[in-house]
Amino acid sequence: MKFGTRDNGTRDGELMVVSRDLQRCLPAGPDVTTLQDALDHWDETQPHLQKTADMIEKDLQLGSRTSDQTWHSPLPRAYEWIDGSAYINHVVLVRKARGAQPPETLRTDPLIYQGGSGIFLGPTDNIPLADIAWGCDFESEVAVILADTPQGTTKAQAEKYIRLVVLVNDVSLRNLIPAELEKGFGFFQSKPASAFSPFAVTPDELGPAWKEGRVHLPLKTWLNGKLFGDPNAGPEMHFSFHDLIAHITKTRAYTAGTIIGSGTVSNEDRSRGSSCLAEVRMIEKIDNGTMTTPFLQHGDRVEIEMFDTANKSIFGRIDQKVVPL
Amino acid sequence: MKFGTRDNGTRDGELMVVSRDLQRCLPAGPDVTTLQDALDHWDETQPHLQKTADMIEKDLQLGSRTSDQTWHSPLPRAYEWIDGSAYINHVVLVRKARGAQPPETLRTDPLIYQGGSGIFLGPTDNIPLADIAWGCDFESEVAVILADTPQGTTKAQAEKYIRLVVLVNDVSLRNLIPAELEKGFGFFQSKPASAFSPFAVTPDELGPAWKEGRVHLPLKTWLNGKLFGDPNAGPEMHFSFHDLIAHITKTRAYTAGTIIGSGTVSNEDRSRGSSCLAEVRMIEKIDNGTMTTPFLQHGDRVEIEMFDTANKSIFGRIDQKVVPL
Repeated sequence: MKFGTRDNGTRDGELMVVSRDLQRCLPAGPDVTTLQDALDHWDETQPHLQKTADMIEKDLQLGSRTSDQTWHSPLPRAYEWIDGSAYINHVVLVRKARGAQPPETLRTDPLIYQGGSGIFLGPTDNIPLADIAWGCDFESEVAVILADTPQGTTKAQAEKYIRLVVLVNDVSLRNLIPAELEKGFGFFQSKPASAFSPFAVTPDELGPAWKEGRVHLPLKTWLNGKLFGDPNAGPEMHFSFHDLIAHITKTRAYTAGTIIGSGTVSNEDRSRGSSCLAEVRMIEKIDNGTMTTPFLQHGDRVEIEMFDTANKSIFGRIDQKVVPL
Repeated sequence: MKFGTRDNGTRDGELMVVSRDLQRCLPAGPDVTTLQDALDHWDETQPHLQKTADMIEKDLQLGSRTSDQTWHSPLPRAYEWIDGSAYINHVVLVRKARGAQPPETLRTDPLIYQGGSGIFLGPTDNIPLADIAWGCDFESEVAVILADTPQGTTKAQAEKYIRLVVLVNDVSLRNLIPAELEKGFGFFQSKPASAFSPFAVTPDELGPAWKEGRVHLPLKTWLNGKLFGDPNAGPEMHFSFHDLIAHITKTRAYTAGTIIGSGTVSNEDRSRGSSCLAEVRMIEKIDNGTMTTPFLQHGDRVEIEMFDTANKSIFGRIDQKVVPL
């Protein structure tokens, strides 16, 4: 199944069931009006949602055009947004960029932080940037949305708590990070609102690309219309979503609708490009001694999308422009 | 106005308007069923809620007894839980305890972290502790619940975005903190679910005790029935809630229902006791060279409450027992 949240003027929008080709959509209601509501009562809502999804797939005349709607992020706000940093290549490069060592437990203990989740940007919302000097960067990621997930979930049990897969642009303010991390309490001001892909899909929609808690497909990012990177999100995700779920459930439980991000998708093979500016800048420093690529400027445009092996878009496109606040 | 969330078998409970003396309550509905809903539509719901609050205050026969209900935390789950650490005395003692220096910006830049908010414990829920070796501690705090709060809110503007005041027990797993902070991304596993006081009150209910974004009253904590501390939450709160709001809104906006905590209430005057075990242990170490007070054991009971100058409870009591998971 594929879902989107239509902007109907309310905070949490209206849940729509979307056709596999992302062209058409039908309201999920009347009994389930928002995605949070569907996730809160999944056992009761899932059969009805599946019926609607089957209908729209069979009858090509059914539904309205997705292009006629404005789409929120699938969850316009969520109860938790937890972001991992599961691609070792990214961790090593970005720590080098700010003169910090990777933690000793780099390969054994996942890096993860709690992000703000009360207001997400929509997939085509502008990124408001009050000050260019903050060093605004994009981070292209994959994320999963959880069912109610108990404390003490093991890696082997984790799969059944993954309800949906989405893409994220985890916007970061690089120049605010060093001073903030220096204080010891993690990111805060350096992580403004993230944006998600217009459509969230059940893992089965990914077919064989969904394997062992990873999405084995390239994640494409364009900066100002030019391909910036297409690293594969699968093989180099050192900690899978199963690992991340086992990690976060050690000391507490999670409500349905909790979102976990993969961290910036990154491959060691440089020809695959990057999913954020910080990596490119670090590579420039390593190669030439100086960083020449600037962070995002007002007017810059970032697009993020993932295609299946038949080159069909799976989640729709994140397409955002940086603007003054 | 005072509010509580009755456990009616649903996730988010039923919003009740509570009498000033905390003895009686009336459903806030039918148009507003949860506290989140009331906060989401405050301008429309506030007049009706105020009418109900006035009614219950005038007619002493009205409503059901609060003692006949089970109370959730006022928001059983919230879109954001942000915890400050605004009492300098606490920061200095706890950092000493783990052999870390206070940050250089201790008095100019608030310490703050993003906590998990998807599942809170209720005010009388047990604290499930899987492993005594994690070093479980309580932290007695004051917190405020926000209205929709825009990016760039100044200290002078902050007051109008504070809708409600509550108490918190911010449970911490002290022995998991050093390794986690060492990784650089802040607290995660070391901060399990927090619990809140049964009742949330509008700032005007505090009378002159609510001043310049601080609550000028002692916050009492008992451990196993014995008074553990009653430090005043006002004068030594170095960063007021107004400061904290200005800090968090630098780079993003917040949804109604966002909660900000003060951090562990702490006074320099040792005769006021403490609001967490970590401080007592550090004082023992400074005075005697060794920490003798253990962290929480299974069976230990923590109670937190605040009284007005007439010795009336303002928020009801947090009363939790530590139990095996």
